[in-house]
Amino acid sequence: MPEATTVIGRIEQLRNRMREEGISICLMTSSDPHGSEYVSDCFKVTEFFSGCTSDNVALLVGEHTANLWTDGRYFLSASKELNGTGIELMRAGEKDVPSVGEFLKSHLQSGMCLAYDGRCILSERGNVYRETAALCNCTVRGDFDPAEGIWTDRPQKPSNPVWVLENCEEPAMEKTERLRQAIRLRGASSMILSRLDDIMWLTNLRGSDIPCNPVALSFCIVNADRTVLYLNSKACTKECEAYLEANHIERKDYEDFYPDLETAEFVESVFLCPSDTSDRIVEILLKRGIRPVAGENPIKLFKAVKTERELEQIRSCYLADSAALCSFLCEVEEGIGKEEWDEMALAKKLDDKRRTIPDFLDLSFPTISAFGENAAIIHYEPKPETNKRIERDSFYLVDSGGQYQSGTTDVTRTIPTGEISPQMKKDYTLVAVANLRLLFAKFQHGTTGVNLDMFARAPLWEEGLDYRHGTGHGIGFVLNVHEGPQNISWRSRKGKVDTPFETGMITSIEPGIYRDGEYGIRTETIAECVFSEENEYGRFLAFSPLTYVPISKAALDPAYMEPSDIRKLNAYHEEVYKKISPLLKEDREKEWLYAATRPI
Amino acid sequence: MPEATTVIGRIEQLRNRMREEGISICLMTSSDPHGSEYVSDCFKVTEFFSGCTSDNVALLVGEHTANLWTDGRYFLSASKELNGTGIELMRAGEKDVPSVGEFLKSHLQSGMCLAYDGRCILSERGNVYRETAALCNCTVRGDFDPAEGIWTDRPQKPSNPVWVLENCEEPAMEKTERLRQAIRLRGASSMILSRLDDIMWLTNLRGSDIPCNPVALSFCIVNADRTVLYLNSKACTKECEAYLEANHIERKDYEDFYPDLETAEFVESVFLCPSDTSDRIVEILLKRGIRPVAGENPIKLFKAVKTERELEQIRSCYLADSAALCSFLCEVEEGIGKEEWDEMALAKKLDDKRRTIPDFLDLSFPTISAFGENAAIIHYEPKPETNKRIERDSFYLVDSGGQYQSGTTDVTRTIPTGEISPQMKKDYTLVAVANLRLLFAKFQHGTTGVNLDMFARAPLWEEGLDYRHGTGHGIGFVLNVHEGPQNISWRSRKGKVDTPFETGMITSIEPGIYRDGEYGIRTETIAECVFSEENEYGRFLAFSPLTYVPISKAALDPAYMEPSDIRKLNAYHEEVYKKISPLLKEDREKEWLYAATRPI
Repeated sequence: MPEATTVIGRIEQLRNRMREEGISICLMTSSDPHGSEYVSDCFKVTEFFSGCTSDNVALLVGEHTANLWTDGRYFLSASKELNGTGIELMRAGEKDVPSVGEFLKSHLQSGMCLAYDGRCILSERGNVYRETAALCNCTVRGDFDPAEGIWTDRPQKPSNPVWVLENCEEPAMEKTERLRQAIRLRGASSMILSRLDDIMWLTNLRGSDIPCNPVALSFCIVNADRTVLYLNSKACTKECEAYLEANHIERKDYEDFYPDLETAEFVESVFLCPSDTSDRIVEILLKRGIRPVAGENPIKLFKAVKTERELEQIRSCYLADSAALCSFLCEVEEGIGKEEWDEMALAKKLDDKRRTIPDFLDLSFPTISAFGENAAIIHYEPKPETNKRIERDSFYLVDSGGQYQSGTTDVTRTIPTGEISPQMKKDYTLVAVANLRLLFAKFQHGTTGVNLDMFARAPLWEEGLDYRHGTGHGIGFVLNVHEGPQNISWRSRKGKVDTPFETGMITSIEPGIYRDGEYGIRTETIAECVFSEENEYGRFLAFSPLTYVPISKAALDPAYMEPSDIRKLNAYHEEVYKKISPLLKEDREKEWLYAATRPI
Repeated sequence: MPEATTVIGRIEQLRNRMREEGISICLMTSSDPHGSEYVSDCFKVTEFFSGCTSDNVALLVGEHTANLWTDGRYFLSASKELNGTGIELMRAGEKDVPSVGEFLKSHLQSGMCLAYDGRCILSERGNVYRETAALCNCTVRGDFDPAEGIWTDRPQKPSNPVWVLENCEEPAMEKTERLRQAIRLRGASSMILSRLDDIMWLTNLRGSDIPCNPVALSFCIVNADRTVLYLNSKACTKECEAYLEANHIERKDYEDFYPDLETAEFVESVFLCPSDTSDRIVEILLKRGIRPVAGENPIKLFKAVKTERELEQIRSCYLADSAALCSFLCEVEEGIGKEEWDEMALAKKLDDKRRTIPDFLDLSFPTISAFGENAAIIHYEPKPETNKRIERDSFYLVDSGGQYQSGTTDVTRTIPTGEISPQMKKDYTLVAVANLRLLFAKFQHGTTGVNLDMFARAPLWEEGLDYRHGTGHGIGFVLNVHEGPQNISWRSRKGKVDTPFETGMITSIEPGIYRDGEYGIRTETIAECVFSEENEYGRFLAFSPLTYVPISKAALDPAYMEPSDIRKLNAYHEEVYKKISPLLKEDREKEWLYAATRPI
């Protein structure tokens, strides 16, 4: 993280350039040209100019103002990181905090110029900014790269080797045919793909250009009879070239993408998803006189519904991953009060256990290993300057996951580190109940995450509690740990169609309670959506767990559980023991698991 | 209800007219020019042509086809009514049943003409039909009145006397100012009001042109400085004329509305809500070169959030109404197996009890008094040909309500009429639990009915059960018994923004279970939305009951209740006794209530 004074200097350099070029406000986001959640270092422009490491950032720099928006997961960390930089933290979604668009509306004055790098702004956001600017009688420059001439030691774009994912049920050729049908249905003949995980799903390739995300920097254009993948030759192994050829996918260099977009004749009537495509791409098409058909990206749903062969691998992958976490938790519980551990040491210990799993590739995100008040920082990642010792009588929270040849995992457990207060027990129990009620929910086909979230929120709301993040996200198959289109959150997203759950989708279930400055609790279990029953009242679905790791009984107060909650806990624990004990190597681990999963 | 042969004859007459005028398909709906749910007899065109008495009907007559759409509440009754008419019942919302638009798309062929009476088709639907017709290369006639020349004894439009509602907190003049602000905010200067309850709310008038709905046939145009009410002079009493004058509302005759719309200069830049305004109105405006600004009708929200003065009246109105129902249920329970009752006799008995309440005006809808399998017909209304005797050992369901000077009520209770089976007890208990969980829910501000419905559905879904209707609707203040914009239903309505609950809104909570051919159970309690608490986790709301009538303990099986469900039931019953026993006149009624509300 740069020093506050370094940040101040960089922003001054930017303001000098803005003055020279007649720019009043410069907008940056933490995204890359692919709308990625996590990005390669070379795209971390907002971090360079603010020091803020959050994933979901917009930074607006004016002549005298600098404002940074991020969401509730990052309020605590961002406020620490921005300290002394002169950049004001805008808590997105909080009462009386204007959105970026609203802020622009009140700060743009007639004749001003708003500038941004349109490659790193999604079209749906770019449209909002362009409309706002037009309303305020301002101009927009979508070709301004704020880092140019300032970020002199900017890293190169990665082009790490790409490999073909084995065990894919559906060859890339069949997937592209499925996509072509969907494009035709939407009244277009070609589609431009920017999201890296969409392109990986479509081509059955995997890469390592973004830490924790097995994806390669690429673009893809699919038309009625051609599929062109823009991927550097350096990245493309022989095996990969052969697979592409066999599946009728042409390869061009990554850098050929924008020039092709400007001139290539195979870009015809274009379908694209404005929340997956950059402002720049749409600008180029419009300049060519191509008005794209906009709609929901069909790959999102294709990718979310796992095939039976994928599910088989995912299930066994989660068992191995759960066993590693059980082994870790056993060791931690045994060592508490005896060992001199800190958050980073424990993160390393767990990461090392995952690395011993045969088909391990990478972590699926940096391990969140948080003790006490650090656990209240929702997306905390231990760093030397924040690293806390594991002490007695609080909570230790660990949110972690791996990338394997057979799946992508994610799991959170919180354990007490000794005696805890009645309020801590109550909070822990409510989170466990929230988790179990959603995990054991049975629901009509057609139900969306807006409905399902109530299973998890209700027990917390009843006590006047809540958490400032979603309850569930989809997870890729050897792909990104956060994946749509389904999403468990009680708030309907304006203008978005909520996607009903389908069998074969997988989701996290991760309620929490966070007491700022005190402690944080989150219990996250991953589950697959399965068929339950069909009768005259409807077709009912349910969840089946993929994660099998105990919930700490010592932190539970059964006074806050209904008898059915206790039955759910015991049923889950019984399965945990059945499935995980054969995978544990040491007797003490098996004994620990046995005790941890006895009925209450 | 007309005979099947009469229906066949009328449709033949219509087909003759269609042939003469070159019309291929004629579309009719059960609505009136005001989008009303219940309509005056003169507007019952679909009933005239089909015999179907349902409220939510679309009827399509082609040269050789006749299809009638209605929703799940009416599948059973409509299938009986259509028997022998040659009209095919289309179960709207069921799998593989096309919507009216989809049906048109597959039946309209190039060159055909689709005709309807645009006064009785809402603009949002009309747009769908016009687009579909254009796609199919067909023409549309929106000025075809199918009843003309065929419905020779069509009733006159009513114009019953109108009165001014006392005890209104906000004078009509202030309401129109509030509306003007909202119109300006939407970028327009005038608004056209068609919904009768909107117009009654705005003007503080009430009428009786539609049975059970205290509304008068009217239109209203509000512009920046004029409010013109189209209401027949015959209906307008002196008191009413004086009130209108004092509130700067001009009155013109109902029949002046369409001519004014075509020519009047005070119709300027128009805001309107396409789901509240007819196709005809929009057509007239477009012909004048006025392109209306479309959006959500702001009166819906104004009207839904009751004022404190309204709430005070509503609370005491519901107590009196609940006491009447308690007195009725006491009498029924005492008489079962002794008295020779049928459904109609019991309906009359209950209606008579309501009529004795001092400020009674009318029923708020025809009383649903249903025994055994009739109770499985969701919107059943007993008629001589269906009237069942009340027997032992089944369920009796009564859904009823009144219009009073102090409010509009709605309530459903189901009681066992003797020994019932374990399955009946289980079903009854699940419905009670669904009702109580939603009634006692605590929820974040921002929560909509899409979220809230889960409190009620979850216990039923868990057992693979459900009901084919919404869980809750708003209720007017001396107005329609069904009112928006809030609505408790788990399915998001396509393209509609779900309205969050606000303090001061009132809603029904009415889960049910229906076993076709056997029995039906529904438990409906009306509640107001109240403030619960505000803390760092949010602003929490809750419900407070308005209805206080016992749920039958004899039909409950506590094995299907959590301890918290039992606490909720007992807490509710304790309040029922406290609030209702002082209002009961006879000792035996008080004793009955005492026993009915003892804790389980």
